[in-house]
Amino acid sequence: MASPHSMENINKRQAALSKALSKAGLDALALNAGKSQLYFTGLQFHLMERPTLSIFAPGQAPVLVLPELEQGKLSNLGYEVQAFTYGEDPNQWGEAFEAAGAALGLGKARIGVEPTVLRVLELRYLEAALPEAAFVDGSAAITALRGRKDAAEVAAMQRAAQIAEEALLATLPKVRVGVTEKELAAELVGQLLSKGSDPELPFQPIVAAGPNSANPHAGYSERALQAGDLLLFDWGAAVDGYYSDITRTFAIGEIDEELKRIYSIVELANQAGRAAVKPGAAPEAVDAAARDVIEDSGYGALFFHRTGHGLGMEAHEAPYIRAGNRELLEVGNAFTVEPGIYLEGRGGVRIEDDVVVTEDGQLCLTQLPRGLQLLG
Amino acid sequence: MASPHSMENINKRQAALSKALSKAGLDALALNAGKSQLYFTGLQFHLMERPTLSIFAPGQAPVLVLPELEQGKLSNLGYEVQAFTYGEDPNQWGEAFEAAGAALGLGKARIGVEPTVLRVLELRYLEAALPEAAFVDGSAAITALRGRKDAAEVAAMQRAAQIAEEALLATLPKVRVGVTEKELAAELVGQLLSKGSDPELPFQPIVAAGPNSANPHAGYSERALQAGDLLLFDWGAAVDGYYSDITRTFAIGEIDEELKRIYSIVELANQAGRAAVKPGAAPEAVDAAARDVIEDSGYGALFFHRTGHGLGMEAHEAPYIRAGNRELLEVGNAFTVEPGIYLEGRGGVRIEDDVVVTEDGQLCLTQLPRGLQLLG
Repeated sequence: MASPHSMENINKRQAALSKALSKAGLDALALNAGKSQLYFTGLQFHLMERPTLSIFAPGQAPVLVLPELEQGKLSNLGYEVQAFTYGEDPNQWGEAFEAAGAALGLGKARIGVEPTVLRVLELRYLEAALPEAAFVDGSAAITALRGRKDAAEVAAMQRAAQIAEEALLATLPKVRVGVTEKELAAELVGQLLSKGSDPELPFQPIVAAGPNSANPHAGYSERALQAGDLLLFDWGAAVDGYYSDITRTFAIGEIDEELKRIYSIVELANQAGRAAVKPGAAPEAVDAAARDVIEDSGYGALFFHRTGHGLGMEAHEAPYIRAGNRELLEVGNAFTVEPGIYLEGRGGVRIEDDVVVTEDGQLCLTQLPRGLQLLG
Repeated sequence: MASPHSMENINKRQAALSKALSKAGLDALALNAGKSQLYFTGLQFHLMERPTLSIFAPGQAPVLVLPELEQGKLSNLGYEVQAFTYGEDPNQWGEAFEAAGAALGLGKARIGVEPTVLRVLELRYLEAALPEAAFVDGSAAITALRGRKDAAEVAAMQRAAQIAEEALLATLPKVRVGVTEKELAAELVGQLLSKGSDPELPFQPIVAAGPNSANPHAGYSERALQAGDLLLFDWGAAVDGYYSDITRTFAIGEIDEELKRIYSIVELANQAGRAAVKPGAAPEAVDAAARDVIEDSGYGALFFHRTGHGLGMEAHEAPYIRAGNRELLEVGNAFTVEPGIYLEGRGGVRIEDDVVVTEDGQLCLTQLPRGLQLLG
């Protein structure tokens, strides 16, 4: 399978972007360092004190503004660019942006930006370089493209799911009474990297046992595992910048009846949520399918987060699987299904899978068993 | 040693901020999720699709706008806040910001923001909530405070240096001909976490051997170590959000004479750079002290980056140790000293230490030996 950022794909994405911008009534799109920039240029820059910017105006070669020391990344790009570079002295950075603005010659343009990614740093340079332009929210045009994963992107996500699963399986032999959440987290992260994840993990794993598992925002702690604990792992891997995001919950020895009961309910809710996924379904219907199982069992108040979120080059992206979201699912949409029940002070269960919408329904990228397993 | 984010410290920081804002001619400071927000509030939020905002106006309790589901973080804060929360539906988020703006009643205020951190997302909400205000670069006021580390902050950085050093020492036994850069990186990351680093590392380690060590921006690769390689590690740990950032270079068995020669030159340049650090010295003088050693040896063109960067809650922050920076060093400034020489296609050497400016000169937080060591 080719890289999701092959030149062929980048060219396709840039062509699709031109159409999407016209459709959205935008004259251009300006992106700073981040995932959308990687998606449309194939270029990866870190978000640092030095700004990098790509501006796409249909009918022109993309404009890039970047530090001189990053210029090497432009060799062998495979497509034409208009590049403007700047040196170490911040007082001279503005000149590069102004030259880029002059080359674009956009005048009173409407320029889309990503409000959750573009910083005031780059916005101010853009405003100075294109003083007549209006900078508006262009995320919808980006989301429409990035939200429909192609075969190479799905393959990268599937590989990211496999790596994450292999890493967990390699970590489980260390699970025993007395080991700390932190020790398991360190082992899991090392395994993720050695099984082949990109160095930048999607997020730091959650390893939460006993009462900590009842906090959906737990990280990990120095607490040692005890018999009777629930043990929750929420972790993921990255491949070519595409993510997996999985949760599995285990029992440390025998657990009490109510914990077993909530486990079974969450397992059914996860299954019901996944079964509701198909093209043309509303995200709110997927949320309701999972939530109804939990509400019918009387635990509705203890499932207090949305059922899932989009997944791809970001750990949280559209579509959000929540009440009120009626933007119908399309083939290629990828997201998590992750219902949970949390008994404060005692323990929580969450089971999270990654699915992609297909012509026929959905493809589940995550394959680890979902039934209750006793460890340690 | 108390946490650097103890209530006592937070109260001190907020009081110092009020003075710094008046001095800078600012009526308020607006911060989104990030390190400065943690510094001034003690609150840690991830930068997500949901905005969080803190606004500090002298004479008022800090204003916070945050998602309902994060509200729990406000219990036991230890200081008064004006909090405004919003729910899951993005269409209603604006109301919380407008209520916050009305409570602040700032009118035609000059409000400082951090251009490298604040996103267009939060800026637009701020502009709508405070329509008469001007949002200007307030980083200098923040840098002045965050740049002078206090005893608790230095202690956290020192602990972060110790953890990083312990993690490297635990990794070195795996170094041998045939092991890959990736395998060493996975081991090092696992060791960083198990030795006690915060889960969020300052950056992903660089493990670069042979020709890869000549690229200062290398990450790690599948390349296996060979006899005669230079092996460069650039890594760090985090404690309470404070970072270390260290580089050491090793020889895999016997290396050729020129590699030995550049090693010695870099070792001397690192020593000269550190020796130039004292209160009242200009960063450009520290840069020159290290650079002169390398230039005098004839390798000046192969040391093509600045000598160092500030370090603290960010891996790159002020002060930048580069030609042209004449903002004199003050007690409490913390930064890296990291000269290097890179022979393209053959190998590179960098030796990086973390120093804090003291009354008497400097305290070096990093203690690993700097002489050439042969491994494997």
